[in-house]
Amino acid sequence: MYVKKIINAPADVVDEMLKGLTEAYPTFVKRLPDTSVIARLEQAAQVGLVSGGGSGHEPAHAGFVGDGMLSAAVCGQVFTSPTPDQIFEAIKDADQGKGVLLIVKNYSGDVMNFEMAQDMASMEDIETGFVLVDDDIAVENSTYTQGKRGVAGTILVHKILGAYARNGASVTQLADLGKELVENIKTIGIALTGATVPEVGKPGFTLGDDEIEYGVGIHGEPGYRREKIKTSHEMAEEIVSKLKAAFEWQEGEKYGVLVNGMGGTPLMEQFIFFQDVKQLLGQDGLEISFSKVGNYMTSLEMQGLSLTLIKTKEEWVAALNEEVHTISW
Amino acid sequence: MYVKKIINAPADVVDEMLKGLTEAYPTFVKRLPDTSVIARLEQAAQVGLVSGGGSGHEPAHAGFVGDGMLSAAVCGQVFTSPTPDQIFEAIKDADQGKGVLLIVKNYSGDVMNFEMAQDMASMEDIETGFVLVDDDIAVENSTYTQGKRGVAGTILVHKILGAYARNGASVTQLADLGKELVENIKTIGIALTGATVPEVGKPGFTLGDDEIEYGVGIHGEPGYRREKIKTSHEMAEEIVSKLKAAFEWQEGEKYGVLVNGMGGTPLMEQFIFFQDVKQLLGQDGLEISFSKVGNYMTSLEMQGLSLTLIKTKEEWVAALNEEVHTISW
Repeated sequence: MYVKKIINAPADVVDEMLKGLTEAYPTFVKRLPDTSVIARLEQAAQVGLVSGGGSGHEPAHAGFVGDGMLSAAVCGQVFTSPTPDQIFEAIKDADQGKGVLLIVKNYSGDVMNFEMAQDMASMEDIETGFVLVDDDIAVENSTYTQGKRGVAGTILVHKILGAYARNGASVTQLADLGKELVENIKTIGIALTGATVPEVGKPGFTLGDDEIEYGVGIHGEPGYRREKIKTSHEMAEEIVSKLKAAFEWQEGEKYGVLVNGMGGTPLMEQFIFFQDVKQLLGQDGLEISFSKVGNYMTSLEMQGLSLTLIKTKEEWVAALNEEVHTISW
Repeated sequence: MYVKKIINAPADVVDEMLKGLTEAYPTFVKRLPDTSVIARLEQAAQVGLVSGGGSGHEPAHAGFVGDGMLSAAVCGQVFTSPTPDQIFEAIKDADQGKGVLLIVKNYSGDVMNFEMAQDMASMEDIETGFVLVDDDIAVENSTYTQGKRGVAGTILVHKILGAYARNGASVTQLADLGKELVENIKTIGIALTGATVPEVGKPGFTLGDDEIEYGVGIHGEPGYRREKIKTSHEMAEEIVSKLKAAFEWQEGEKYGVLVNGMGGTPLMEQFIFFQDVKQLLGQDGLEISFSKVGNYMTSLEMQGLSLTLIKTKEEWVAALNEEVHTISW
């Protein structure tokens, strides 16, 4: 019996994916030997940026390794935190004597393992900093999380800190900026279908043929409401109203917008949703300072999307617009 | 009753998608007023390259408009050829006095309408050339096609001709090169699920829970065989054996590889498939001169992928690697 996926043995999916990724993009990244770490071909003389987490969210995070973004990404098994020793390998590769900043999505396993790797680095006198991303405002606490979950907003943190790190910021400066960024980034998702972890073989949750769920996490964690599917505009109204309440925004403020596909939703629908979001933000007198639409932080083949807003400063927009050399930004 | 998609009225999907695309990427492209044409912000002093076709294949073709690739893309309704007047609008915008090359996937409606637009251009003394892309070797003749269908290999034609056009090639040179390229590009797809056109409301075809189909087209046209799903490696063997027979390749030859997701298949599976393909090509002593993996020519939310191979010359690889300014290359 096969799961209906293009895979070989379910136990090999991450290893084979990393093999395929590095073989397809040998001028972008390398895999550190005998690890599940994807790193730059050559590390730069700057503070290293290391992120990662469970696999199944591609292109996150390996697709964002490269000049101007991450130094290395640690890839756990599907929806499973990478182990401390793997994270430590990434830290050692990324450290060029100026220390390493860890960018970690808020899941209990990830936080624990990245902290343990931080301890290991400390014992070898590598300076580290820690940025915890918890941008998903849909629910407090969740299947794998104390507090709020970290989701697609993480990509914007990678991009902005990546620009600052390249331009010479220190570990402390990056950690402080990261904290400030996270306070200004908020996300909510919508799911139309569940997703199937290859080794599990059935969807993590199921929805009726005409049912959607607001606030679902990127591992299929429960959201805050199920209802019959509505129009894109009505779904945008629901999500934007929640983000509006959380930001308490005022006319004239500037926001960056990331519409992120969950993996199984076509770009066409993402662009339609974007124009509905833009119209709603425009009604409130907000200005869009940056925008991006596509699959960046996915959940295997889940159909759905998330909307991330970042309240921007001018210099953050400049950082978002800087050129990078990555597979997927 | 809603189709389970993130849309508003089904009749509005293309218009709203184009609105969203141009609003999200205003520094990349513009929409010609009152048309379904996506064009460069500023056209360059070169031969213009115009492509297009039915929508539902995003990012093709609008995502490939920009310096170094297309001058303009004409976007028909979902899976429906654009009309001659719309194509003519694109030609007029793209023409900077050096003529325009049309890159057309081989579907009867597209061929007819692009040819009519060519006639309209001729009446206004705009020189045009025509490249017909029929890279899908799965079947001869098909639902909407005489001969072979045009599919994901079209993106490689855009990229290589885009580089040559930017570097000063004439309409005739580009048309000749386009013909040579098409002779050296071959593709076969695999579908795991069908896709639903919004205005139709049900899938164009259905497959059993454990069934796949080899050779399906990007509008759900029938392929050449259905069978129970196999491993990625076995599916790669099937497709590669067909391509091998068509190319009659010899040890030591160089090929570029494009693994193209159909819209609903996660990157993880595409990378796994890539490494299986690479292994098989390696066994035959072929060298991979270029590779790319991702969603480039999709079929709405269809799960599946296609494999395109291009037998490369050195200068074509250089053209594939030139920098471009597009949303999606």
